[in-house]
Amino acid sequence: MKEFELIKHFFTDQIVKRKDVLKGIGDDCAIINIPAQQNIVVTTDTLVSGVHFPHDTHPNAIGHKAIAVNLSDIAAMGAEPCWLSLAITLPEVDKGWLQSFCDGVFELCEYYNVELIGGDTTQGPLSITVTAQGMIPEGKSLLRSGAQSGDWIYVTGEIGDAALALKHFYNQVSLSQEYVKPLREKLDRPKARVLAGQAIRDYASSAIDLSDGLVSDLNHICQASNVGANIVLDQLPLSKMMLNSLTFDEATSLALVGGDDYELLFTVSEDNKVGMETALANIGTKITCIGQTNKSKILSTTINNEVVPIQAKSFEHFNDK
Amino acid sequence: MKEFELIKHFFTDQIVKRKDVLKGIGDDCAIINIPAQQNIVVTTDTLVSGVHFPHDTHPNAIGHKAIAVNLSDIAAMGAEPCWLSLAITLPEVDKGWLQSFCDGVFELCEYYNVELIGGDTTQGPLSITVTAQGMIPEGKSLLRSGAQSGDWIYVTGEIGDAALALKHFYNQVSLSQEYVKPLREKLDRPKARVLAGQAIRDYASSAIDLSDGLVSDLNHICQASNVGANIVLDQLPLSKMMLNSLTFDEATSLALVGGDDYELLFTVSEDNKVGMETALANIGTKITCIGQTNKSKILSTTINNEVVPIQAKSFEHFNDK
Repeated sequence: MKEFELIKHFFTDQIVKRKDVLKGIGDDCAIINIPAQQNIVVTTDTLVSGVHFPHDTHPNAIGHKAIAVNLSDIAAMGAEPCWLSLAITLPEVDKGWLQSFCDGVFELCEYYNVELIGGDTTQGPLSITVTAQGMIPEGKSLLRSGAQSGDWIYVTGEIGDAALALKHFYNQVSLSQEYVKPLREKLDRPKARVLAGQAIRDYASSAIDLSDGLVSDLNHICQASNVGANIVLDQLPLSKMMLNSLTFDEATSLALVGGDDYELLFTVSEDNKVGMETALANIGTKITCIGQTNKSKILSTTINNEVVPIQAKSFEHFNDK
Repeated sequence: MKEFELIKHFFTDQIVKRKDVLKGIGDDCAIINIPAQQNIVVTTDTLVSGVHFPHDTHPNAIGHKAIAVNLSDIAAMGAEPCWLSLAITLPEVDKGWLQSFCDGVFELCEYYNVELIGGDTTQGPLSITVTAQGMIPEGKSLLRSGAQSGDWIYVTGEIGDAALALKHFYNQVSLSQEYVKPLREKLDRPKARVLAGQAIRDYASSAIDLSDGLVSDLNHICQASNVGANIVLDQLPLSKMMLNSLTFDEATSLALVGGDDYELLFTVSEDNKVGMETALANIGTKITCIGQTNKSKILSTTINNEVVPIQAKSFEHFNDK
């Protein structure tokens, strides 16, 4: 099957038609009209089968995750996602698989009013590369580099569940049967915190999405902002599933290093705290203050106000090779 | 080696720094400032090892080709290439390979003042996905759909050489030894007709880049523009290497179906012919008029003004599986 026919059939059948897309799929390039006073944000992420998701992952979940991890980067800038390019490499043309994959893609596109404006379909080992673009008013982007010493550190949602699902996949943990499916869902279908990102952009001093793990990603903020940080371990937002499946030490350790949560990690000054909390309460996003930045240039963790060593190694992505 | 270190080391070491890139590699997204009255064009192409280039291709050529095929799409819109995102999946970290690959990438970036603004580096079977973006004044983009019946059909450069190189790779043709290297260069290091694309944008009625082959790509223009076309076979621009290696019939047939030339195919009205020819003469781009569009809705070919049947099957990309 020629790549054109493949693209036409599966990828042009979308509901979202944005007015700013002057030409979508079907020419050498897509053409976009950018409104005045808006910056464009651009991100690219690749998911490789067997590296970023288990081979047995449902195609619908693969489609969902390929989009969600990119929207999560847009969210971490405080931007509004608008346009996607999708490159998919497939070992073979399996129509049922493709339809389910596309359903996963378009479900998120429709929810966030994002238009697929182009892509490429090639033959080879399964992998998906998405380039997502968003808009944000000039100068409003949330960078990793804006944290000031004394800012409060917040995280959305709960963290560590995706890593716990991975531990179960590797048979490294025994889970209560009722947790198996919801945890796998957390791994396979991460939420992108798109609305939360836009809600905090007038208040937060820095932001990043949690893809590599709390320690690793907080380190990115600290290095870019030239600050240190302390994480209060007894304040980490852990799910019941985490707390019921692991000891407290195991759970906090996993929450520190586990990746793939795609929650937002951000800092906010004392002055902006109330405004930010109100903005997030308005959209119903759970947030937790997990610590504070400081002048130390290092990362520390405390329990009951006592410093404990970080036993966290950086999270390695799923890889079953 | 963690993906961050890999990206930092090899992909941030670029010379091009565009003023419109407010934030390049190193945050969740890149941030771009778009000037007023400009549209953005976006394209994505994936190259898979063993599918789009032979496994033995030099890494420098792979880097070159991954960028060139995308710039070629930007050129076919008449736009100015500006920003690239590069996702590379590698079986292993081979520093020498990566350096050579990056040299191939950055050579083109520097030539065209294109900045690499982001990307992703993952582990897996070798493939490269590039998303390229360009700028073009509002409403000036060259579409496939603008050809009118009676327009002249032009092609830049010479066509069929990349397909001849592929025939040699498959041992389907015996080449004079002196042709082996220059032909492989045509396959491995296509030129993107970036300047030609911008030169014709005030004159051409439609344009496309020749990636799938003349018949296939002209068909795209005809279908999008709702016209037919006749190709004058004795006017096809064939290289000496083609003419000396194949019979005339074999050479024209290969030029009709061979892909991977990345020349521009475009149409121009009688009124705009002189303006277009002058604009291209000014930048030294060879062009050849190879036929004319008509009202027939079909594609025909003639030799000495006599219609001959098209013996062209659509070109299949390189695939050694």
